Amino acid sequence: MTRIRVELGEQAYNIHIDPDIGAQAADIRGCVMGNGVLIVTNETIAPLYLERTRDLFAGMGTGMKVDAHILPDGESYKTLGSYEAIIRDLLASRHNRNTTLVALGGGVVGDITGFVAATYQRGVNFIQMPTTLLAQVDSSVGGKTAVNHPLGKNMIGAFYQPVGVFIDTSTLTTLPARELSAGLAEVIKHGALADDAYFGWIETNIEALLALDPATVSRAIARSCEIKAEVVAVDERESGRRALLNLGHTFGHALEQTLGYGVWLHGEAVGTGLVMAADLSVRLGRLGLDDALRIKRLVAAAGLPVTPPQTSAETLLDAMAIDKKATDQGIRFVLLDGIGDAVLVDDVDHSVLLETLDAGPRLLSS
Amino acid sequence: MTRIRVELGEQAYNIHIDPDIGAQAADIRGCVMGNGVLIVTNETIAPLYLERTRDLFAGMGTGMKVDAHILPDGESYKTLGSYEAIIRDLLASRHNRNTTLVALGGGVVGDITGFVAATYQRGVNFIQMPTTLLAQVDSSVGGKTAVNHPLGKNMIGAFYQPVGVFIDTSTLTTLPARELSAGLAEVIKHGALADDAYFGWIETNIEALLALDPATVSRAIARSCEIKAEVVAVDERESGRRALLNLGHTFGHALEQTLGYGVWLHGEAVGTGLVMAADLSVRLGRLGLDDALRIKRLVAAAGLPVTPPQTSAETLLDAMAIDKKATDQGIRFVLLDGIGDAVLVDDVDHSVLLETLDAGPRLLSS
Repeated sequence: MTRIRVELGEQAYNIHIDPDIGAQAADIRGCVMGNGVLIVTNETIAPLYLERTRDLFAGMGTGMKVDAHILPDGESYKTLGSYEAIIRDLLASRHNRNTTLVALGGGVVGDITGFVAATYQRGVNFIQMPTTLLAQVDSSVGGKTAVNHPLGKNMIGAFYQPVGVFIDTSTLTTLPARELSAGLAEVIKHGALADDAYFGWIETNIEALLALDPATVSRAIARSCEIKAEVVAVDERESGRRALLNLGHTFGHALEQTLGYGVWLHGEAVGTGLVMAADLSVRLGRLGLDDALRIKRLVAAAGLPVTPPQTSAETLLDAMAIDKKATDQGIRFVLLDGIGDAVLVDDVDHSVLLETLDAGPRLLSS
Repeated sequence: MTRIRVELGEQAYNIHIDPDIGAQAADIRGCVMGNGVLIVTNETIAPLYLERTRDLFAGMGTGMKVDAHILPDGESYKTLGSYEAIIRDLLASRHNRNTTLVALGGGVVGDITGFVAATYQRGVNFIQMPTTLLAQVDSSVGGKTAVNHPLGKNMIGAFYQPVGVFIDTSTLTTLPARELSAGLAEVIKHGALADDAYFGWIETNIEALLALDPATVSRAIARSCEIKAEVVAVDERESGRRALLNLGHTFGHALEQTLGYGVWLHGEAVGTGLVMAADLSVRLGRLGLDDALRIKRLVAAAGLPVTPPQTSAETLLDAMAIDKKATDQGIRFVLLDGIGDAVLVDDVDHSVLLETLDAGPRLLSS
């Protein structure tokens, strides 16, 4: 088993990576506090993994109460309504402050469950058991929790750390190809923003990753978690360096919001967002065209879109202005000075930004 | 001006107490970050104090955007629905992460606004400007934020500290007598749990407090804030000592929940809850009857109820079991070993508890 430490002082925790959930049972036991557990999952994951997960917790001792809450599947259910339904379940089943919430699923399940854990009775114990690649390499690590609001994505949430993240890599065998690709968008992002050698390794191994070669997949998850853990450890609340993890996300969120949540997967929007960030970096003279094209090719090789949907620059700009990354001075962008070398830039020339937003299928191709 | 420091490391802040809000303007300015402010208040407070508060913030500089959100008045509006309405306003008016939320009102306004501040875009700047005695001596200090759920009071919330608390004691002149008494319940609680000399001082000065003698009121607010600040500083998250502040509250919450929120004011329920806690302490041989009767007399002298409404012990017990203070082992009580000497007790004998719950008008009178 691979263990990665997220160094956050009193809130430090381990990420466990193993293709056998049984091998993680003792560590999982160590993360449960009281004698109540609520597993939150969705309609897709429940038939596959709920029973064995329920058994795992129920087997921890007599008197252990294990409940489950099954959400509908999809980003469109990442709402205050779903949040309230879980809270209602917890209260109706009399879970007290010593209960443990378990997020069994992808990013949506993890984000909602984490926000419930952050706010139920002002905060209860929380375990992440991510079952999608995106959640395993990105959203389950770092303590960002949230639900969407009709007026903006992730606008309601909290920073709240889990007590442990348990990644069973064998769950990827049941993941649809489209979602596997979506997860690879974050893997590519990690290489692009922090580690050019890792980016090169991903280029070499993209076929093995898509084929779910176990050793290759485990290595990518571990390296991505390491990169994310390092960034989060120095800047949990995103006052500085953590914002680098938003590479591709300012554009990506604008695409998601413009299209409507759920039309593109988050990772697909991030994939195109990475290409747009690379395009803007080239236009601003920061990134060489060759490196930008490597990013575009790798995003495409991962099975992700590299062209934004037809929409106006004004619509995208409008969607970006409400984004959390917007400062009082304007919109803050994560740009690249090279592969593995991301920077925060506040004063992007408006006319150059419009060129990127207007480029459409001509991104990085002019 | 009196300043009291709440020692919470990076989240430390000052409580400012003064009968002239103008004298606090420079300190308030120091607590604003960006160029956006949303003042949350209610229909009762808005006609009295919103305009001058709006002017105060608007006067901080050109380009300062000052919006207001006016809630209906009352505990029954401390809901997720009110919370969502504020979030919607923030998004519609494009408040970004650098915005500042200002709670202008009593405990309900403070609790909801604090929870919005804790969770809007994962946390924004927050200022408390409490206008009721209860909020000035208790709820505005310590960072507990919450909304109610139909299945339980304060079940949804977060620990989230303000950057400053600004108490304008002159606002008490417009406070209804019933709410003044409700605030005194928390003042009496502070003496009873932590400081017998302060308790004696309250006994001596209860008439001056009810008459709003300025120096006496300021002294009570300052001493109560000090007691609360000291407890919160050593145990922000209520893993131990902070639970002592719940003296009277386990009973009080059960009364509120049984009656339905809003029938009794929170402070009224706490008043009777203090008498019930004293009664239970006497029955368990912890507290002398004389001291218990001093508490009952002072609660009554403050204009608060000292007799629970007619209800069954089972109903109250049921309401307590879902309470946050309930542990896996049972219900945790704050009891008194003397005036100024509160203790946490986990293993209260069930039959003795039932005697207190069944006593009704015979509390401390047998």
